[in-house]
Amino acid sequence: MPHRLEYFFDYVSPYSYLADSQIPALVERTGAELVYRPFFLGGVMQASGNSPPATVPAKGKYMGADMARWLKRYGLELKFNPHFPVVTVKPMRGALVALEEGFFPAYHKALFKAMWLEEKNVGDAAVLGEVVKGAGLDADLLLRRIEEPGIKDKLKANTAEAVERGAFGAPTFYVDDEMFFGNDRLDFLEEKLRS
Amino acid sequence: MPHRLEYFFDYVSPYSYLADSQIPALVERTGAELVYRPFFLGGVMQASGNSPPATVPAKGKYMGADMARWLKRYGLELKFNPHFPVVTVKPMRGALVALEEGFFPAYHKALFKAMWLEEKNVGDAAVLGEVVKGAGLDADLLLRRIEEPGIKDKLKANTAEAVERGAFGAPTFYVDDEMFFGNDRLDFLEEKLRS
Repeated sequence: MPHRLEYFFDYVSPYSYLADSQIPALVERTGAELVYRPFFLGGVMQASGNSPPATVPAKGKYMGADMARWLKRYGLELKFNPHFPVVTVKPMRGALVALEEGFFPAYHKALFKAMWLEEKNVGDAAVLGEVVKGAGLDADLLLRRIEEPGIKDKLKANTAEAVERGAFGAPTFYVDDEMFFGNDRLDFLEEKLRS
Repeated sequence: MPHRLEYFFDYVSPYSYLADSQIPALVERTGAELVYRPFFLGGVMQASGNSPPATVPAKGKYMGADMARWLKRYGLELKFNPHFPVVTVKPMRGALVALEEGFFPAYHKALFKAMWLEEKNVGDAAVLGEVVKGAGLDADLLLRRIEEPGIKDKLKANTAEAVERGAFGAPTFYVDDEMFFGNDRLDFLEEKLRS
């Protein structure tokens, strides 16, 4: 029986952007059953007491060099978003709507692109609407549904569940109760999925 | 011409213990000129404003699981030292003495072993003396020389230099001005050393 792989991510997280580029091939290689779990990283940081790396200036500087190495290895580009840290509550609720509505793959791709290649403030509802429309999706539906109490509650519940299970950042993966944090642990994750 | 690889470490750091197990083979594969740079991690943390991972409880818990994965991959053992965080000023000064006196390899091996396999409080001068003696080295000489102003100043200078060059933890490696932090970046380090 294939392993179930839960993938908690937030579009605001550049390391989620890195990891995300590797997930399709990893899933294909391992036959894992991938479950996307949108959560709100800001809530995870607050609840866990963690702080972003750049809070320590030397860490922030090194993170730039480290990021450049990963981008080169993965053959990816990234433009640092001038609106960072974007408040991603709305786009993450949007991911939940997209999962329910059956257009998640196109939405997911458009959001990471808008955030990490197109320098867009996807936390702003009007900008989010343009991005969604640009991807050929129903922006009116999405902007309406992200205000539904059920969707709001689901994002809160995903975030609280991740914190409860030990998350303190993004991306965070689970195979059963085993947690893997960061794109730099995808190799350990893959070993687990092959076991 | 081979690259010069500067390796800043502290015996108190379990990730230095992990990295250290991989360094001899890495140096042999790449032909790098290895330069051991003992520093005092406590001073680096204080000066950079960084804090140990376990300050965030969820990070501390995950670090245990992560450590177990690395130990398995490297085929190493580790016993968590009950005296942690050991104040390693004296053993790090000892590393500088050992480098000057020409018995560094035996000292280095004995200190990591005492710290991460034998649960010894190597920050205590009497315990440090026993460890050094047990390794067949001149404990009287070492305990005397670690109180020399020149040795004290050298540890402070190494620590200050690392902070100045961007360090915020251990192990930290430099190839010229390029910094690599952590055992989990040894692959990027090796790519650099092969370039």
